[in-house]
Amino acid sequence: MVSKTPQLPTKSRKSKIYEIIFESDTSAGKFFDVALLCFIVVSIIVVLLESIQTYRDTYHLTFRIIEWIVTFFFLIEYLLRLYSIKQPLKYALSFYGIIDLLAILPTFLAFVISGGQSLMVIRGLRLLRVFRIFKLGSFMAQGNIILQSLNQSKGKIAIFLYFILIIVLIIGSLMYVIEGEQNDGFDSIPTSIYWAIVTLTTVGYGDITPATNIGKFISALVMILGYSVIAVPTGIVSASMINQARKVNGQACPHCGKEGHDNDARFCKHCGGDLSV
Amino acid sequence: MVSKTPQLPTKSRKSKIYEIIFESDTSAGKFFDVALLCFIVVSIIVVLLESIQTYRDTYHLTFRIIEWIVTFFFLIEYLLRLYSIKQPLKYALSFYGIIDLLAILPTFLAFVISGGQSLMVIRGLRLLRVFRIFKLGSFMAQGNIILQSLNQSKGKIAIFLYFILIIVLIIGSLMYVIEGEQNDGFDSIPTSIYWAIVTLTTVGYGDITPATNIGKFISALVMILGYSVIAVPTGIVSASMINQARKVNGQACPHCGKEGHDNDARFCKHCGGDLSV
Amino acid sequence: MVSKTPQLPTKSRKSKIYEIIFESDTSAGKFFDVALLCFIVVSIIVVLLESIQTYRDTYHLTFRIIEWIVTFFFLIEYLLRLYSIKQPLKYALSFYGIIDLLAILPTFLAFVISGGQSLMVIRGLRLLRVFRIFKLGSFMAQGNIILQSLNQSKGKIAIFLYFILIIVLIIGSLMYVIEGEQNDGFDSIPTSIYWAIVTLTTVGYGDITPATNIGKFISALVMILGYSVIAVPTGIVSASMINQARKVNGQACPHCGKEGHDNDARFCKHCGGDLSV
Amino acid sequence: MVSKTPQLPTKSRKSKIYEIIFESDTSAGKFFDVALLCFIVVSIIVVLLESIQTYRDTYHLTFRIIEWIVTFFFLIEYLLRLYSIKQPLKYALSFYGIIDLLAILPTFLAFVISGGQSLMVIRGLRLLRVFRIFKLGSFMAQGNIILQSLNQSKGKIAIFLYFILIIVLIIGSLMYVIEGEQNDGFDSIPTSIYWAIVTLTTVGYGDITPATNIGKFISALVMILGYSVIAVPTGIVSASMINQARKVNGQACPHCGKEGHDNDARFCKHCGGDLSV
Repeated sequence: MVSKTPQLPTKSRKSKIYEIIFESDTSAGKFFDVALLCFIVVSIIVVLLESIQTYRDTYHLTFRIIEWIVTFFFLIEYLLRLYSIKQPLKYALSFYGIIDLLAILPTFLAFVISGGQSLMVIRGLRLLRVFRIFKLGSFMAQGNIILQSLNQSKGKIAIFLYFILIIVLIIGSLMYVIEGEQNDGFDSIPTSIYWAIVTLTTVGYGDITPATNIGKFISALVMILGYSVIAVPTGIVSASMINQARKVNGQACPHCGKEGHDNDARFCKHCGGDLSV
Repeated sequence: MVSKTPQLPTKSRKSKIYEIIFESDTSAGKFFDVALLCFIVVSIIVVLLESIQTYRDTYHLTFRIIEWIVTFFFLIEYLLRLYSIKQPLKYALSFYGIIDLLAILPTFLAFVISGGQSLMVIRGLRLLRVFRIFKLGSFMAQGNIILQSLNQSKGKIAIFLYFILIIVLIIGSLMYVIEGEQNDGFDSIPTSIYWAIVTLTTVGYGDITPATNIGKFISALVMILGYSVIAVPTGIVSASMINQARKVNGQACPHCGKEGHDNDARFCKHCGGDLSV
Repeated sequence: MVSKTPQLPTKSRKSKIYEIIFESDTSAGKFFDVALLCFIVVSIIVVLLESIQTYRDTYHLTFRIIEWIVTFFFLIEYLLRLYSIKQPLKYALSFYGIIDLLAILPTFLAFVISGGQSLMVIRGLRLLRVFRIFKLGSFMAQGNIILQSLNQSKGKIAIFLYFILIIVLIIGSLMYVIEGEQNDGFDSIPTSIYWAIVTLTTVGYGDITPATNIGKFISALVMILGYSVIAVPTGIVSASMINQARKVNGQACPHCGKEGHDNDARFCKHCGGDLSV
Repeated sequence: MVSKTPQLPTKSRKSKIYEIIFESDTSAGKFFDVALLCFIVVSIIVVLLESIQTYRDTYHLTFRIIEWIVTFFFLIEYLLRLYSIKQPLKYALSFYGIIDLLAILPTFLAFVISGGQSLMVIRGLRLLRVFRIFKLGSFMAQGNIILQSLNQSKGKIAIFLYFILIIVLIIGSLMYVIEGEQNDGFDSIPTSIYWAIVTLTTVGYGDITPATNIGKFISALVMILGYSVIAVPTGIVSASMINQARKVNGQACPHCGKEGHDNDARFCKHCGGDLSV
């Protein structure tokens, strides 16, 4: 960027790093990817183990050392990514760029605020890199079908969740009025709404349960509502996935133009024409 | 309505109010809609916060003032709606008309009966106005598909719920006979039915659990029944939604203009005309 | 049956009773049906209320009187059914015949064994008569679609349940070995299997929960298994219902023989021919 | 194998044993299969009962005797299988071969390590033999549809589970940071992840529940997420089963004999031949 004469070697070095870090076609690139994945998994395991009192007390120093090594590796990796890519700012503001940065910060944050270290599990999000690291062809295609199905149904799901919101609001308030005085669990409307969500989603912790007869009756109605209403998101996504599967499989016949062929079809099922033409 | 001479200006004033309150094409109408939504949300938040002991004690006066302001605004709005619409009675007896009235009453009811204020959360139902306020084109279409699917399956779902009712009645009584004497939880058949619903819907609070071996065995059967039987409403709604989706995809017939054709239809099912023309 | 001369009037009386009890075309038949339904509902409510201690103590005599009236009515009805029908034995051994008998017995059983009265809730099964009483045309059609779908999938569901059985057997034993010594909840394999069912079906009472780390880990796996595996019965029934819906709607075109027409179709979508010919 | 002259009778004896043990066409073979099934069921029941303290104390000797008889029978059966089959090693390393061996070992293991006996419930896996024993034609076909559907969706389900893993990792860590100090339940990240799985899968034991307001709010979000997200595996399997059902319905091509045609196919997708010939 500064000197003009050694442009080619610099560019070559840059693109070499780019190839190693961003791609996985070369053996160096593959090695880097596997190493990165190991570092991510190790860093997560360390965070998990460190949160357990007994391990924290016994292996405190070991955990600290591993953590710094991992952070150092992540830092180098992040800087190399910024250096080797053509549009560093675009990367830095991209989804993966932000996660990569967030994976480094907590270790340093721990100096400033206590407990900041716990946020290190945001590194878990780095596991999403798996999809990038191994360019998992068929896996990505499968994942895309799921995402497109969800994307296609997001309007319906939003309306569904909005109705659920109104329902738990009304039921929560009703139960507060009914149970509030005799039952410590329903001591405020927000808590009652929390109970309504616990019940409607069929989670059923049992930390708050109705005590009055009318409260139990309404609870029973809420349960049956939740039990039946789960059919709605399921139906939405099922319908969308069936639709998606049909579309993905289909290609138009070059002879008659009709669609809906299976993936393994070699001839059109409508006119018998060769699909591979 | 009374004087005949200033008819035109009155009508114009009326229709101007109508435009602002009932429609959202003008900028004044849009402003009104957003303001209304804010008032609804604020009123709900106040009711939620007021139900929490600590907030109620500290900000009692603030809550009361906001409540009266909101109620006053809702009252004015309700009267203007009655005044500006052509058929006030029809509006007053419509779904939204009753909700709008119910949103005002609780504040006044609080003078008559204590606790009446809590019913104020019926204002939550006013959130349904969102669909009206923003004439959410595609959202409404999506919502309609859900509603039509549910409407189409309501017969099947009613039968399903009727069977569930009979099942929990029988199981509840059976468990009362089995567990009743040794287990305080099953102290009456209604309570046992409540337990059966909690178990069949896979909510599983755990406030009442079987103690005897045979009781546990029957519980296990009920759980597996509930776990399998959830497939029924889900299947009903899924089948209905797929059907609905297929219809929605269809095109209008160029001959009779009717819609609802399957994707593979070549001729109109209403008039027999060629769809490919 | 015995005397031959007064044959006609006897037959007419028999068939008159038959019409009233078994059919609902005449006004007398309708009145009988509604009365029967009321008696069924009243008898169930009495059993429910009587199981509650406070009500039992206060209204003991009232309950007893109502019970005897209802039982007497059911007895008369049962005898009249046997008398008026052409094949009494066939009725007596039919599904409804057995339920009708079981609805009468418990009151008498109460003399012989204590607690026998509680079995009276078998009367709940009489609610199934609703489907007979009101010859609920479209309702029955809808119910038939559900039953046929379930019937069609019963092989798949049986295999699914068999696998579930094996899974909970293995997991229950495994958890008994792991948790048995430290956790009172897992004190025998049958109890551990009960826990496995509670967990796999996502009921989750919480009366028995894992205490060890490895136990929690296995529990988590069981939960995720149960959460994913519920897709199997749901998928089975959904697929079957979609299939069923397609078949029920379809009729073959009299011109081209193709199927898959909608219920409201008047012309074939394949050849445009009139379906009503 | 050793002597050459009595080859035929030996072979005949071998193949006779093979017929009895591996096949079920002869009456001897059928008797053996039913006897085997009885032994499997008896051995499982004994293990279940023995794990219950009271039964263990009372019937200790009986259980021991039955156990040794069953083990002896299983041992003989295993050796005969090895002897009569043509490729003993292939059988020994096959799925059923390993299970058959594992069914024998625990009784002997009990001498070496205490508690080893409990592993005997691995015999439960022998129940899978049911599918072999009765060559359940239509059952196997149904089971194959399920397995093929699951096989077809395994890519999508793997991705789904991977996302669930990342989600519970992040949510578990978040809740540890939020609840950790005030709530004994969230004393480490692994425990918090366990809670996240309990909540997301809607099991909801209630052994660990949020205590803080923000914790309850996040729990509510997790529940709604779990309640909606269950639609994904359900949709995947439903779509796959519908697809499978469609294929199963298809006919064989009269030209090339291949199957798997859609119901509306007019030409073979493999060879382009006319299916209606």
